[in-house]
Amino acid sequence: MIEDYRLDPNLAKIRIVLVETSHPGNIGAVARAMKNMGLSQLVLVNPKEYPSQVASARASSAADVLNDAKVVDSLEQALEGVQIAFGASARLRKVSWPQLDVRQTAKVALQTITADATAEVALVFGREDSGLSNAELDLCNYLSHIPSNPAYSSLNISAAVQVFAYECLMATEIKSVHSNGYRHQLATSDQLEGFYDHLYQALQDIEFLDPAKNARFMRRMRRLFNRAQLDVKEIDILRGVMSAAQRKVGLASKDDRDV
Amino acid sequence: MIEDYRLDPNLAKIRIVLVETSHPGNIGAVARAMKNMGLSQLVLVNPKEYPSQVASARASSAADVLNDAKVVDSLEQALEGVQIAFGASARLRKVSWPQLDVRQTAKVALQTITADATAEVALVFGREDSGLSNAELDLCNYLSHIPSNPAYSSLNISAAVQVFAYECLMATEIKSVHSNGYRHQLATSDQLEGFYDHLYQALQDIEFLDPAKNARFMRRMRRLFNRAQLDVKEIDILRGVMSAAQRKVGLASKDDRDV
Repeated sequence: MIEDYRLDPNLAKIRIVLVETSHPGNIGAVARAMKNMGLSQLVLVNPKEYPSQVASARASSAADVLNDAKVVDSLEQALEGVQIAFGASARLRKVSWPQLDVRQTAKVALQTITADATAEVALVFGREDSGLSNAELDLCNYLSHIPSNPAYSSLNISAAVQVFAYECLMATEIKSVHSNGYRHQLATSDQLEGFYDHLYQALQDIEFLDPAKNARFMRRMRRLFNRAQLDVKEIDILRGVMSAAQRKVGLASKDDRDV
Repeated sequence: MIEDYRLDPNLAKIRIVLVETSHPGNIGAVARAMKNMGLSQLVLVNPKEYPSQVASARASSAADVLNDAKVVDSLEQALEGVQIAFGASARLRKVSWPQLDVRQTAKVALQTITADATAEVALVFGREDSGLSNAELDLCNYLSHIPSNPAYSSLNISAAVQVFAYECLMATEIKSVHSNGYRHQLATSDQLEGFYDHLYQALQDIEFLDPAKNARFMRRMRRLFNRAQLDVKEIDILRGVMSAAQRKVGLASKDDRDV
């Protein structure tokens, strides 16, 4: 059940940007949260206190990430060279920015850096008390939020970075744990329908399927395989298995006839 | 894109248990992480310092969760009335406990409390420096880990609680969005191994599998079906399909002999 994770090198292309963080302890905790999830690029926009003993203590064994942090004067500088920036924010009802939750954010981020070897992305976190200004959000392509308790939705900044970084790692894992580095294109709905048609026929050929129960049974199969998010290669393989069974069973039928 | 979250009342049945936490600041940060995700039941086993000003400061607006925390002398007491306990731990290579990652943990936890209105579950977190003892892990049904950087996998305890609580909230959403209520128990690792053994044999029986490519092919099958998180009913069904194919093919072979 246990496999080695190899960290996806794309994680190195995700920049965590903290804007005017007040508490140095939070900066240290962010560095730790990042390193725990394989992120390494920390950029601080006008931190109130950095470097700091308090930050170093909270960073624990992530001193490298903390000490390598880049300090800049403006969010524009922090975003230099970045293809897509995601601004962390509570979910807002009426805004002009496109909004994603953290899981979607991680997927878009990973897709972006996987598709273009030179691309970098940034996750931008605002002040502890007041978040990001509208002018700062204007520099972001997306507004990203963490689903939370509507009665208390304000996470500590290092806790928020922890969740974003965790989802980034999980987004890479789907790619790497499940397929030594590479996953094929996900199957289209046409390809899936072809697969389900084939399955339906094969199950009858091997005399598994009771026609009276077909609809319910096939619905169950759809739930199972839809959950697995089959890629095109896997569809090929599964159809190959079904064809092999059909061939062998066809021989049986032919033999039956010959006898 | 924006929906109102209504917190699933089942979140109230998830207990967070902290064993011998040293730093009161961590206890406060845990309370905040819990409330942010809609959890409310905090149990402290022999905390070093509680109540504490430091804890209250870090709890921010989660004073209610912090102040309502139950303090007990032993993990046994903390787990009274709990149906399933998950012990947070790094992933271990050789252990006798069944292991889940945090996303699987949240799904199993939610399934458990959804299936039985009286059930409660516990997520158990050990000491900051040394985690949970083997005797304490023996009181847990599963060992649960957060995928992380193999070079630095030790999360701050409040960061770890944040990720677990976040996945619990996400699991409630996934439940309300995707399933019409009911899924069977997830298959155990023994049941999965039985399934893979059966699959391996069946693929040979239908003459699909080239023995020279077995290992790589079966690894691919494992990736696919592990991704689907099969439940016990689905395992039964898939094994039924394989048995049907084997039966038909067996007839073919018999016919071959007969001819």
